[in-house]
Amino acid sequence: MAELTHIIDSEVFLAFSTYATIVVLKMMLMSPMTAYFRFTRKCFANMEDTGMAKTPEDKKRMLRVDPDVERVRRCHQNDLENIIPFVVIGLLYTLTGPDLSTALLHFRVFVGSRLFHTVAYVLPLPQPSRGLAWMVGMGATFSMAYRVLSSMHL
Amino acid sequence: MAELTHIIDSEVFLAFSTYATIVVLKMMLMSPMTAYFRFTRKCFANMEDTGMAKTPEDKKRMLRVDPDVERVRRCHQNDLENIIPFVVIGLLYTLTGPDLSTALLHFRVFVGSRLFHTVAYVLPLPQPSRGLAWMVGMGATFSMAYRVLSSMHL
Amino acid sequence: MAELTHIIDSEVFLAFSTYATIVVLKMMLMSPMTAYFRFTRKCFANMEDTGMAKTPEDKKRMLRVDPDVERVRRCHQNDLENIIPFVVIGLLYTLTGPDLSTALLHFRVFVGSRLFHTVAYVLPLPQPSRGLAWMVGMGATFSMAYRVLSSMHL
Repeated sequence: MAELTHIIDSEVFLAFSTYATIVVLKMMLMSPMTAYFRFTRKCFANMEDTGMAKTPEDKKRMLRVDPDVERVRRCHQNDLENIIPFVVIGLLYTLTGPDLSTALLHFRVFVGSRLFHTVAYVLPLPQPSRGLAWMVGMGATFSMAYRVLSSMHL
Repeated sequence: MAELTHIIDSEVFLAFSTYATIVVLKMMLMSPMTAYFRFTRKCFANMEDTGMAKTPEDKKRMLRVDPDVERVRRCHQNDLENIIPFVVIGLLYTLTGPDLSTALLHFRVFVGSRLFHTVAYVLPLPQPSRGLAWMVGMGATFSMAYRVLSSMHL
Repeated sequence: MAELTHIIDSEVFLAFSTYATIVVLKMMLMSPMTAYFRFTRKCFANMEDTGMAKTPEDKKRMLRVDPDVERVRRCHQNDLENIIPFVVIGLLYTLTGPDLSTALLHFRVFVGSRLFHTVAYVLPLPQPSRGLAWMVGMGATFSMAYRVLSSMHL
């Protein structure tokens, strides 16, 4: 492992910052998308959210589970399960001092696969498009984790 | 982007560490709160957790969904969806070398909005208190992400 | 707080990188485990995932909730709620310049408790094995957070 203090000021670190921010922003946008589907489908999880209803019966009817809302929420959950490990392992990978081109390849493959994953999940596209997008993203993170572990010592 | 190696030893970094730790601890406390509601409401998700029941019928009756438990779990999930992006983007923002006063403003607005969000969700307070708290927190994180992306180059 | 720029190149940081990567990889492996149970139990959440079904009735029958799948998913969710706080607080703790032996104790206790937690959840083992594993992990993270906050100033 090379001198970390120099690496953190490097091109690789700047690239990581940019791609990590982009993919985390994409993940955050699933929240407003869930809100959008909740309002257009009139489907809420909390009684205090049903203020647009006029009668108590209407309020109760809005406390339901909607398949479109659940689809967006599953996509958001899948993002949490995949994008956060990418950020953690990607940061540690950046500090091992990889080549800029190799690092960019990892970051771009991951971010591209997750953008496609969201499209494939929300539309939805027929399988195996979503499954493949998920696997490619996992592969990029595993490849970075391999480099982190092989440049370490317990 | 200024010299990162000096910035990481700065006042801004110390402030980030403190506020990030506080808000992550707040998020972690949702777990014991869920446990508290599960025990007082006698409502569990796993058969092996129903040891306090005396008869097999009692055990089965405890495997249910309780609205209070679900409310705390939704609050915890919302924390995961908002606080983790804050930590990631906040760390990268800290490394761009912002003014201490601007950084403190972002960190304090975010942490304050999430503390209020938890109160508004668990009590619950009438809307739009929870919705506004969520938006203010998102706004603080988006504002930091804007600075990260504008001081970067792909 | 000592000079951060030297600490980031230290033994403690290398140890943190290794243990954080191991425990994040463990968390990521819950995704393929969920997929494995979904395929063997023929239990899916999305209509487009039921391609193995031959008739439309079979497809609908595969859109169900299976207790084994839900158990693995709850274990994955518990990982997200506990391992991500460990990574965040563990990184900040590493930067406070702790003794290597104290730091290793925290990292090993946490990672060991989470590995045992997964075994106790998926098999499952009788309680309180899972509950204790969860508490030990929380304790390690809280202990690191205490050091972070006591070496800071607001």
